This record gives sequence, C-alpha cells and structure tokens, in this order.
Amino acid sequence: MYHELLTDMYEFSMANGYFQTLPHNKQARFDVFYRNVPDHGSFVVSAGLMQALDEIKHWHFTADDIAYLRSLKHFSADFLDYLEHTKNQCTVKAIPEGTPVMPQEPILSISGPLMEVQLLETLVLNIINHQSLIATKAWQITNAADGRAVMEFGARRAQGPDAATYGARAAIIGGCSSTSNVLAAKLFHVPAVGTMAHAWIESFPDELTAFRAWAKIYPDTAALLVDTYDVVNSGVPNAIKVFKELRAAGHEPVGIRIDSGDITQLAKKARKMLDDAGFPNAKITASNALDAHIVKALLEDGAPLDNFGIGERLITSSSSPVLSGVYKMSELENNGKWEPKIKISNSREKITLPGNKQVYRLYKKDEPSKAFADVIALNDEQIGDTISAVNADVYATHDKVELKDFVAKPLLSEILTPDHEKDIETDTFAIQKFAHQKVAELPTATKRLVNPDRYPVFLTKNLADLQQKLISEYRNI
Amino acid sequence: MYHELLTDMYEFSMANGYFQTLPHNKQARFDVFYRNVPDHGSFVVSAGLMQALDEIKHWHFTADDIAYLRSLKHFSADFLDYLEHTKNQCTVKAIPEGTPVMPQEPILSISGPLMEVQLLETLVLNIINHQSLIATKAWQITNAADGRAVMEFGARRAQGPDAATYGARAAIIGGCSSTSNVLAAKLFHVPAVGTMAHAWIESFPDELTAFRAWAKIYPDTAALLVDTYDVVNSGVPNAIKVFKELRAAGHEPVGIRIDSGDITQLAKKARKMLDDAGFPNAKITASNALDAHIVKALLEDGAPLDNFGIGERLITSSSSPVLSGVYKMSELENNGKWEPKIKISNSREKITLPGNKQVYRLYKKDEPSKAFADVIALNDEQIGDTISAVNADVYATHDKVELKDFVAKPLLSEILTPDHEKDIETDTFAIQKFAHQKVAELPTATKRLVNPDRYPVFLTKNLADLQQKLISEYRNI
Repeated sequence: MYHELLTDMYEFSMANGYFQTLPHNKQARFDVFYRNVPDHGSFVVSAGLMQALDEIKHWHFTADDIAYLRSLKHFSADFLDYLEHTKNQCTVKAIPEGTPVMPQEPILSISGPLMEVQLLETLVLNIINHQSLIATKAWQITNAADGRAVMEFGARRAQGPDAATYGARAAIIGGCSSTSNVLAAKLFHVPAVGTMAHAWIESFPDELTAFRAWAKIYPDTAALLVDTYDVVNSGVPNAIKVFKELRAAGHEPVGIRIDSGDITQLAKKARKMLDDAGFPNAKITASNALDAHIVKALLEDGAPLDNFGIGERLITSSSSPVLSGVYKMSELENNGKWEPKIKISNSREKITLPGNKQVYRLYKKDEPSKAFADVIALNDEQIGDTISAVNADVYATHDKVELKDFVAKPLLSEILTPDHEKDIETDTFAIQKFAHQKVAELPTATKRLVNPDRYPVFLTKNLADLQQKLISEYRNI
Repeated sequence: MYHELLTDMYEFSMANGYFQTLPHNKQARFDVFYRNVPDHGSFVVSAGLMQALDEIKHWHFTADDIAYLRSLKHFSADFLDYLEHTKNQCTVKAIPEGTPVMPQEPILSISGPLMEVQLLETLVLNIINHQSLIATKAWQITNAADGRAVMEFGARRAQGPDAATYGARAAIIGGCSSTSNVLAAKLFHVPAVGTMAHAWIESFPDELTAFRAWAKIYPDTAALLVDTYDVVNSGVPNAIKVFKELRAAGHEPVGIRIDSGDITQLAKKARKMLDDAGFPNAKITASNALDAHIVKALLEDGAPLDNFGIGERLITSSSSPVLSGVYKMSELENNGKWEPKIKISNSREKITLPGNKQVYRLYKKDEPSKAFADVIALNDEQIGDTISAVNADVYATHDKVELKDFVAKPLLSEILTPDHEKDIETDTFAIQKFAHQKVAELPTATKRLVNPDRYPVFLTKNLADLQQKLISEYRNI
C-alpha cells in the first residue's frame, strides 16, 4: 500500500495555492535534516530511504483519492485534474541508509515542481524520522551489548503495525541480529526468532512436561523459558533434566531465556548450574524491559548473558521517542534561475542552510579509515586541499578554520530522477554491515553512551557567507 | 491490508507445538489488560477495537504466507496444511472503544482454539496498546485545553504511516476535534485541517504578498501563519492588512497561527493588535511542541488562545510512549471442561486474574450518573444488592469490603463469535462522544493531570478466593 494521502492538509492547500498563483512548473528544492540527536547521542543512523524512495517513485493519486479531495470542496477543479494526471517528477539526492549523520546535514534533498515536492513533505519525514530513530536506538543498544546478539522483540508494544514492521527493519540496520516479527522477517529477508511464551508452560500440567513436549518438537533448537514459576528452584533444574534427555538422544540444547526478576543474580546462578551439569555452551538470553543503559549495567555487573531480547524500549525508542527531522526549502527557481532560500527564526539554531548542498566526510590523509570532521558545502564548490570553514554548531565560536590533510568523500548522491533510477542497497544485512563500517570510522569519544563528544561539523566559508548574506537581506527588509 | 503475519515467531512455534501435542480443538481464553497507566494517570481511554476486530474477523493465512512459513523449515507440514485452511474460530468479548478502563480490567477477552487465540496475541496487543495509548494522551491534552479545540498535527513525527493514521483516529476518540492527516480524515470520516507552512511564505517575495495570495484563494477560510519572520513586527500587522482587505471584499477572516517563540507573550500582543484593529473574533492557534502540561500552563498564564495544534508529543505520547498491555491465559479447556488458569510471578502485581470474567462499573444508586468503583467478577456470578469484595490493588490493604447502594453495569459484552457478529460503534465522533460521557461519570479527583486519585477497583470475593486457591496450589507443587 502506498500512502500518497498521508499528507498534512496544509500541503494540499498550499499545492492548490501554488497551482493558482505560480507557474505550474516552478521548481523548488527541500532538504531533510534534523537538529537534535535522540538520547543526547552525537549522531543518527540514517534509515528509511528504501521505503521513502519506493513511495516517491510510485507517487500518484488514484481516482478514489481525487474523488475524496473533490468532496472536501476546498480545491479548484483544475488543480484536481492536474493532480489526477501527475506522477513523480522529482529528483532525489540522498545519503545512503546506514550512514551516521550529524545535525544540520541534509539526509535527503528533493527537487522538482514546487507543488509536488511540497506534497511529499509529510510522508517523507514520517518514514525517515521513524526508521532513523529506531536504527539509532538499535545502534546504541547493540553497541552496549558489545558483540552479543540483540534480538528485536517489540512488535506487541510498537505504535501500530508499520511501527512494528519497519521498526524491525530499522533495528536490524542499527545492529540487531534478528526480529521476532514474522511479517518483518518475510518482507525484509531477515531471521525470525523466538522461543516460547509462558502460555506454553501453562498449557501443560507442569513445567517439566511442557519442556519435554517442546524438546520433542524442536530437539535441535530448544531454548527454554525458565521463569514461569521459579528460575532457580524449578526452571533451570527442569531445563537441565530435559537437556540431558536431549543429549542422550543425540541433540545439543540451545539454552534458556530469563524474562523477569534480578537478571544478574539469576543468570549467574543459572550459568553455574548449567556449567556444573555439563552444558557450558547452553546460552543464556535475557529479555525483561531492557535498554542500552541496562544492558551496559548488566554486563558491567558481570551477568553471564549471551543474548538479549529487547522489546518496547527499542521498538518505540521509549527514552527518546521522537526524531524531529524537518523538511525545509533551500532553493527556489525564479524565471529559470535557481535562488537560494532560507528560513529565518528568532532562534539562531533554527535558521536553515540555503542552497543546493553537498556533505563531505573528511578522513585523515595518513589514516584513511578515520573520519575526523564533516563539511557542508555548496554543491558546486570545488573541494581542494584546504577548506576555509566555520563551525556549523551555532553555539560554537565562529572563528574561521582551515581544514587540511584530509581525503574528502561526498555523502550525497543522486539516486532518482524522473527518468532514471540508481540502484540503492536494499539488502538489510548489507545496510547493517555498511552502518557498522561507517560508525567504526568515527572517533571513539563520539560513541560513548553518556555524554559523547560532538563530532565536528563545519560549513564552508562560501556556504556560511551565503547564509549570512540572506540573513542580512531579510533583516534589512 | 491485513497483518496475520504480524505475529511473534514464538507464537507460530507454540501453535505448531500445540498442534503436535494437544487436541487441535483444545479451547483457551486469553485476556487483554494493562497494569500501569501512561503518564501516571488513573485510567486509559480504550481504543483500537475496531481495527483489532477487523483483523480477527478476516484472519486467515494466504498461500503466500504459508509458502513463507514452509520456507523456514521449522514447522510440520500437517500444521501448515491446517493453517492454510483455517479461518477465525474465536469469540471476542470486549469493552466498547472510548471506555475509560482501569488496571487489571480485561479490555478484550478472546476464546477459541488455543492455537488460534495464541496466534492473535501480538497483533491484537499491538493495535490495542497503540490506539489506547494515543487516545489516553489525547484525553489528557484536550482535558487540559478545557473546551478549546485541539487539532492533531503529528503525522510527520509519528512512528510510521500506521502510527500517523490510526494514531489520528485514536486522538479524535480521546477528544481532538480534527487531524491534519488527509489519509486518516478519508478513512475515518473526520475533518482534515491546516493552514499553511512557512514554505508558502518563502515562496513569495515577501510575507504580505504571500498572505494576499492565500486570502485570494481561501477568502472564507484564511488562517495565516504569522511567525515566519517576526510575529509582532511583521506577521500580525501584515495579517491585519489582509484581514481588512478581506472584510472590505465581504469575507470574514478566520485567524492566525503562532508556531514558535514565547507563545503567551506573542498571543497576548497579537490578541490586542487584532482586537484594536477590529477583529475580536479572529482566532489564535498555537502549535509549537505542546503537551498537556504546557497547554495547562499557557492557559493558567492567561494566554488568549482559541485552538491548539499538537504534533509529536501527542502522536507518539512522547512523555510516556508505551502502553504495556498484556495478553494472558485465563482459562483452558480440558476434556470438555473449562479450567481457570493463572500466571504466577515473584512480583505480586504480575499474578494474573484467573477465569472467565466480567467487569462491572458501579454507579451511585441515588446519583446514577456518578461511577464510584469497578468490580471484577467471575462471569457467572450473580451480582445482587451487596458485593463482598477486596481491593484489586495488590498494594492496598486486602480487607474485605461490602459494596452496596449501587447500580452495576457490565462493561464487557460478546461482539464476535465464529458465526455471528454484533455491530459495534465505528463512527469516530460517536465514540468520542461516548468517551466524553464515560469519563464525565468518573470522580473529578481521578482526572487531575498531576497525581490523580486512583479509581477504586475491587475483585469479588469469589474471584479473589479463586486466585488465592490457584496460587496455593502452585506453591504446593
């Protein structure tokens, strides 16, 4: 299902207004970017491009959509006739999914007829904001898990079916190994995982019978949930009994899952019991209301955990459940000539960056796997050996700096025009791997869970000057 | 689109296990309920039943679903054959959408073949948790707005397309007047609203020209966004100029919207300017990062606001973004006889209520519009003039109480059987009205934004005794 009507009403009102007022083919450019990182992190793992692009490519209004819009008696008939026969005419530049992106950097830049670029705003933001939010949270959690597998278990607490499904995809981009959500697994070709719920245990006369029934059906994948009654006195001893029976029959058990109680203490006791019984390779999975900080604390506490199953706090990014990405006009065509545009605000950090832009990630010349800064430039600037720049952080000192000894790699590339489409990576684990590599390139101090360093982002002098010129023009109106 | 595969993998693993192990038609009952109210409120406004019921009624697996499940090589062929030919065989009891519900009360109770009831868990919880969460937040905000219109504006920050769309519906159930989301407006027959974005203003040489262009197209619905450059020195004076031109042409302007800055001070100044210019009926709408507490504070501060547009903090319930509803087995059929089931836990509040239950709302006999307590009873209990009960709050004193002088109204009713379907209310504003009435019946002190009184919920002595008996049986195993 496509969502061309998932559009704020004012976008249609404006499009109708543009249609009545301005040349129909007046071109505009809008950039998607964000200002603040969720959970006070230093970067966002971008995600959502695949779905956003799919919506843009297939963007059109059905006869049913048009009939509905007509029923509102708010739009002119000629505008609706135009809409009924239009399809995507936009050009999209984007940073690849999985790239860590910084505040103010355009993640997408969409140009095309003003009316149509305007009508895409809500839907594009909805998708990019949501998936980037969850990919970022997943990165934080998997980073805290320090190499252990993190399974996405949140479908039942996600904010609706799409949040569960596209959220699972974003979670894997951010680093999760798998999801419990079968629909997401099917759509995105990722593993669907899980063990059993307490209901399985309760459907049998006792825990041991329930475990035995499970082991009989899944002898080679038996992971047993041991906290229905009492982890130490019932769950683990019964699991060990069944594991021994399995081994006697030639099968090796997978492990146990603990979903309640004091995870550290229970895991330590369970580990010892499993080891003593001859099952040092049986894995212990924890899955109760976990988040990055809790995962980190459990591991620092020495909890012998092999895997994590993470539910609501991942799939809703509950500690910071909004990524406030925005969609701002940066250029407008006037009589065939592009003019840079700016949004002025009384808040300095809300003033936008004008013009068609490119983002460069700068790597150390002598250590080409280490990124040390990003530079936002005007698209047509030539990047030489030295860049004159100012700090993009509006709260930093705006002294001019000279950047040198770098290798600059552009992050934005054109992936869609009305006539042509460039292949983007759509394999979920390939995007995950790319994200992992790109995050690895960043300075370690930017990746701390608490109070990370800001990653330096600069504006070229040309871009900063253009912004200042437009601010001055507006102030002098 | 239906979401039969939006199911945690372990549900399929368990269903396959039940199929191999237990009679295929073994019946079970599961209850949906929650334990904690978001934002420390005292009740949840239930929502999501319409979509959940639609999914349950149409529940079946397509050939494509089955082919995917088969490809996992985890399920038996006879189980998949069975699944391919099964459709809904469940019976659903539910509390109507819009009802304020309390912790531990079954919102839905689903009975039918264990396998199938198990397979519905994830999807039903996803829908009910999400929509009830947003309806509850919308109630809190609209209650704080004290009669002023609250418009749902959050589509771009919602967690995916469904969250935007079904979230908008839930927001209206909770009390919002309208949504900006055109798709939600179309699907749920509610008003789509909005004015213009800053991009409209920026698409013209100056603000006044942009306002004039808008007023020409929408002379009778002109609401102007006045904060693109400077509310007091530019936005409002330009709006007043255009309002005068509109009035001279025989149209009455709608008002202005302020989306940034110190809303109270800006609204006071704008109000005075509009009044002085002869536009005392021009409305002022505020729309910047609002939530219930901020709305309340603005009004206490005397901000002369007529409407609110609320975005991300409503559509994600960002201050409390998860409703942790659960789905727990309460009965299991054994050789044709229903047996009550319980989930034991080391945490007292996590022990479930066994059996097939009914929830009664008790109204004062001499003041039949005032609800004073709820009682959770066994379904087959007769409710007479007096009820022997204990407090359902596990942290309260469990002294026996005698409830009397009440009129008891059951909240749960059967709305779906495999053969029959009862009409439920699906008109969004009718549900909103019902919610408004039902909330009005609750004690005022339970509706405070901060530290509300708990609404009393009791268990009948019979239910409490049954729970205690099952706990003792398990403890003695």
